[in-house]
Amino acid sequence: MNTTNSLRKHALEIFYAGLHAVKPDVCMQDHVHLTKNVLKIGNGNYDLGKYRNIFVTGFGKASGSMARALEYMLMKRIKTGIVNVPYGYTAPCKIIRINEAGHPIPDNAGIQGTREIVQLLKETQEDDLVICLISGGGSALFELPCEEITLKELQNVTGLLLKSGARIDEINAIRKHISQVKGGRLVNISKSEIVSLILSDVAHDQVETIASGPTAPDSSTFSDCKRILIKYGLLQKIPVSIMDRIQKGVDGKAEETPKATDKRFDRVSNIIIGNNRMALNHCHKKAAALGYHTCTLSSLIKGEAQEVAKVFGAIAREIHQSGNPAKTPACIIAGGETTVTVKGDGIGGRNQEFTLAAAREIDGLENTVILSAGTDGRDGNTDAAGAIADGSTITRAKYVNMDTETYLNNNDTHTFFKNLHDLINTGPTKTNVMDIMILLVASGTG
Amino acid sequence: MNTTNSLRKHALEIFYAGLHAVKPDVCMQDHVHLTKNVLKIGNGNYDLGKYRNIFVTGFGKASGSMARALEYMLMKRIKTGIVNVPYGYTAPCKIIRINEAGHPIPDNAGIQGTREIVQLLKETQEDDLVICLISGGGSALFELPCEEITLKELQNVTGLLLKSGARIDEINAIRKHISQVKGGRLVNISKSEIVSLILSDVAHDQVETIASGPTAPDSSTFSDCKRILIKYGLLQKIPVSIMDRIQKGVDGKAEETPKATDKRFDRVSNIIIGNNRMALNHCHKKAAALGYHTCTLSSLIKGEAQEVAKVFGAIAREIHQSGNPAKTPACIIAGGETTVTVKGDGIGGRNQEFTLAAAREIDGLENTVILSAGTDGRDGNTDAAGAIADGSTITRAKYVNMDTETYLNNNDTHTFFKNLHDLINTGPTKTNVMDIMILLVASGTG
Repeated sequence: MNTTNSLRKHALEIFYAGLHAVKPDVCMQDHVHLTKNVLKIGNGNYDLGKYRNIFVTGFGKASGSMARALEYMLMKRIKTGIVNVPYGYTAPCKIIRINEAGHPIPDNAGIQGTREIVQLLKETQEDDLVICLISGGGSALFELPCEEITLKELQNVTGLLLKSGARIDEINAIRKHISQVKGGRLVNISKSEIVSLILSDVAHDQVETIASGPTAPDSSTFSDCKRILIKYGLLQKIPVSIMDRIQKGVDGKAEETPKATDKRFDRVSNIIIGNNRMALNHCHKKAAALGYHTCTLSSLIKGEAQEVAKVFGAIAREIHQSGNPAKTPACIIAGGETTVTVKGDGIGGRNQEFTLAAAREIDGLENTVILSAGTDGRDGNTDAAGAIADGSTITRAKYVNMDTETYLNNNDTHTFFKNLHDLINTGPTKTNVMDIMILLVASGTG
Repeated sequence: MNTTNSLRKHALEIFYAGLHAVKPDVCMQDHVHLTKNVLKIGNGNYDLGKYRNIFVTGFGKASGSMARALEYMLMKRIKTGIVNVPYGYTAPCKIIRINEAGHPIPDNAGIQGTREIVQLLKETQEDDLVICLISGGGSALFELPCEEITLKELQNVTGLLLKSGARIDEINAIRKHISQVKGGRLVNISKSEIVSLILSDVAHDQVETIASGPTAPDSSTFSDCKRILIKYGLLQKIPVSIMDRIQKGVDGKAEETPKATDKRFDRVSNIIIGNNRMALNHCHKKAAALGYHTCTLSSLIKGEAQEVAKVFGAIAREIHQSGNPAKTPACIIAGGETTVTVKGDGIGGRNQEFTLAAAREIDGLENTVILSAGTDGRDGNTDAAGAIADGSTITRAKYVNMDTETYLNNNDTHTFFKNLHDLINTGPTKTNVMDIMILLVASGTG
């Protein structure tokens, strides 16, 4: 096997080592331990003998698998539970009901599941324990709009926000203020002790952002919401009921979301059990074990995919020329989420866009491989997680009459890599801790 | 002194350590040694007793200072010489004539100086040695257009090319094919052994790119030139004499530039005596000596300044959170040249644009400092080399009523940093090895 082929194999092994480490069941096993009758979660100890009943709620792409792992651990200690997941993301649970629902636009099944969760939470007592399993996608899956707002109106505003160019924290500010359950409002509903186990799909693991933070204090206000609607020119476009709700809040006539000073959060613990950094740590370990001089750049990468790719190209060439920032065989690891300013009408995603732009940067380099893939297994509007490329990718594309610039300009990176058989297809992974990027550079010809 | 202040001081010290190492006289001292009567340059030995006469030619921003250093070393062994530099870049030489001329648009003084250099070279014999001192800016400063092309037409096409968005290698392809001296044509003019000492202002130190490669084989052709003119829509805009020249070349009726297979290059040595990587190496040593865990990312950084800055922001935050890619106190060093897609009409340059965008990314972080500056001392259309920022820069800007987004959107970064007294003013350094970027992150409060 020549070096480029073994590098490609290693890049995939390193990616999968990271991906495996953030699988919901692995994260649960790593962070949740039952010893005799004491449940240890992070630094917290929960003496199960102390609680009348244990209830399980949850929402998000990974939450079905998390529920399955928790049920396996606690078995009949769980009184009952209900978890909302996207269609196709169910898990084989016996006690906890897994309810499939719409994502990213909420639907009736999601509302109905949320009503059941709210009903369950309302019946909990001060001596109960509620375990809440939160993961990416939860914003759409755990939703009960304020009574004056219909599902149709909620769907309408969600669609408008997703298309507006607003940041996710801005979208969530609105979501939180027109909802009965988001933005920390779970403390309004349940009197119990609540421990949220969270798989983070956002940079910096802000618990108030993940799934719109149902168990976290909210730092946004009704006034912020109005500013955001003005900023994106949505004031006149959103349903009247929603504008009325926000204006009532601004006028002090609707209840604000609970803030950090609220004493009720004393009985709530929000614990991150998986995030991008944990995935990168495992990539790092795997790369080191394979003999690479390994450098983890950052788990917080952002920026336009094609421009970020240029930095990776510059690092690849530097490694060849000077052994910086790592000697060969070198492995550079990064994570986060880039963005793509879409100009064409092709099929692709940020990982495939990054990989093709990086392929252009490393064109002609021997023994150089780059990979970028989303941990959720779905990059953009495609069914691939991402793609892999090496110094011969651009040349191989020419052999099959593909012009790189044409495909990049049309954001048609999926078609490009599909034709080269260089897609990474994991299938839906049922987890999500953003993306992983891996650069491998070796010397010699192997 | 608190930590941020000492970090700012260190960042400047590290930058200046790199800058000092690529000063023309320092590079000459580092790479050119006279022992008894033998001149050692890189791996080459030139027994001065062997040569009838030594002549010196040169062109570029650093070439005056290089001539001064060479003259100091060889003294009266130099028969005569002439070097073209931009106005204000002269140096106190006694034997070599330093001729000031126009840059970046060639002028009559440059043409006249080039005629003198050509005359000198024509008179050299096979047993002479020509030392050619080449640095950035040389393309405009060493120019003698083909006889059918006037200076005015040359200025016209140079201006069109610089504004067209064409890459520097594309601009140089045209320059080489309408010139009597560029693109390796020095081997047509002189019969002597030629050693070129080169201070590189381009990525990868391609000698055929620096100063349009007068002593290097040219890989571009007349056909490439026509393609480039078509690509940027210049075919109908350039002077007729220039289009005629290119078309004659395409038709095989004008002499191509000398190619790599040309035996005449056997008597030519092109030696890089200074480049961005050398500067970064000295930054690295200085940072390590100051006690930083130091990581040099790449000397080949490129990409849109604001996007590249996001990657540096991601690294800064990662260092604080996980100690990757270096533990605190950490120093990340990089070099190269970013680009700015100008949208506003403010005053600025790529280094100041990068620094302001990075300041936004590190906003609120304690003990975090970022610096970016050009080694030539002139960033964009300003008289500053670059700027320095820390985690409080955005807040300090608010105190004086400056909104960061407004200044960034207007590309008015010079005004921004001027108001904060955060410009780096080196004055013209008379050297140029692209830009240097430095990120410092410390823990503790100092």
